[in-house]
Amino acid sequence: MRRFDSEQLAQLDASYRRNLINCLPGYKPLQLIGTQNAEGATNLALFSQVIHLGAAPPLIGVLFRPHTVKRDTLENILATRCFTLNQVLPEWHVQAHWTAANWEGSEFDATGLKEERKTSFSAPFVEGSPVQLACLLEEVQTLQINQTVLVIARIEQVFVAEKSLREDGTLDYDALGTVAVTGLDEYHQGQSLGRYSYAKPGIYPSKI
Amino acid sequence: MRRFDSEQLAQLDASYRRNLINCLPGYKPLQLIGTQNAEGATNLALFSQVIHLGAAPPLIGVLFRPHTVKRDTLENILATRCFTLNQVLPEWHVQAHWTAANWEGSEFDATGLKEERKTSFSAPFVEGSPVQLACLLEEVQTLQINQTVLVIARIEQVFVAEKSLREDGTLDYDALGTVAVTGLDEYHQGQSLGRYSYAKPGIYPSKI
Repeated sequence: MRRFDSEQLAQLDASYRRNLINCLPGYKPLQLIGTQNAEGATNLALFSQVIHLGAAPPLIGVLFRPHTVKRDTLENILATRCFTLNQVLPEWHVQAHWTAANWEGSEFDATGLKEERKTSFSAPFVEGSPVQLACLLEEVQTLQINQTVLVIARIEQVFVAEKSLREDGTLDYDALGTVAVTGLDEYHQGQSLGRYSYAKPGIYPSKI
Repeated sequence: MRRFDSEQLAQLDASYRRNLINCLPGYKPLQLIGTQNAEGATNLALFSQVIHLGAAPPLIGVLFRPHTVKRDTLENILATRCFTLNQVLPEWHVQAHWTAANWEGSEFDATGLKEERKTSFSAPFVEGSPVQLACLLEEVQTLQINQTVLVIARIEQVFVAEKSLREDGTLDYDALGTVAVTGLDEYHQGQSLGRYSYAKPGIYPSKI
């Protein structure tokens, strides 16, 4: 095992440290966030700092870097109070990565990813994404420690590929085939090892 | 696509809704949290609500359900201000799942996962984990919206399997072979689709 203590971590080259620390959480959820500004100009941005906050009501969190420079996605969310989350498929994960470039216009036009409109919601979805969430801003919390911004949103509508939806409400990710991310630039497919029974003392978990 | 609107989401059976909403973020990081109480009794618990908060200083967040009942891991962290995060291997992911049972004593003894002690840190690590983090409590924030508790910690020491550490500080997850989770009870292995060049307008990303 390679060990880095706090002093070594502090002295690492900034790029090396950014790579290492971003890799430490493990596999992270990958979401394209679709927004538009007050004038209707669309934006699409790739995020991995997404966290389940609660099921009832259904809440999800997205963490943004400090709002010290222009951040289109965050500003659009603050202005319109709505956004979409769209999971990414292997077939277009490179286009998803490309949304991170500093484009002049909309990332939809630039990368070739297609906008999908649903009559019931005003932010754009990504066409072909098998898990699409319509989210409404509930709260914004700035973390004192490093000025990152936690956007707390209510999941207002859920669209999931029919084939992935199991009878108990879980999603079959082997059937979905969506992508995870590690660090800042590496994408992964998953393969299920199985689901396990509710954990009880003295009874070794069995596959369900 | 199956659609659930906000009214339908609110009316779902609680178990179905919990399953569905927990599955929506996508692949989530899987971490065993090692702690001990003031008397030195150890605890080991499985978590997926873990989020990268920043690289300089290196910060990580863990979200806990509302502190309305006894929560050993959270209480140990509040009492001792330290904990470990340990990624999980396929070989012992079922034991990791089993830590969630309501054990009387330590989950280490109960599940057969082995405690590893490092002289430099007072919380227990999981032996054999290829990514082990020593974390120090920095801040606790209760989210007003649902009383969940965000523990913000500084990564004080990093231990990673030598074979996975690339020259630029990134970790090779194919080499690590650790496990991701979806929903509450399904575990997954990953396979890399590749790393891509820094995104720039007009230049299609290439593999690096």
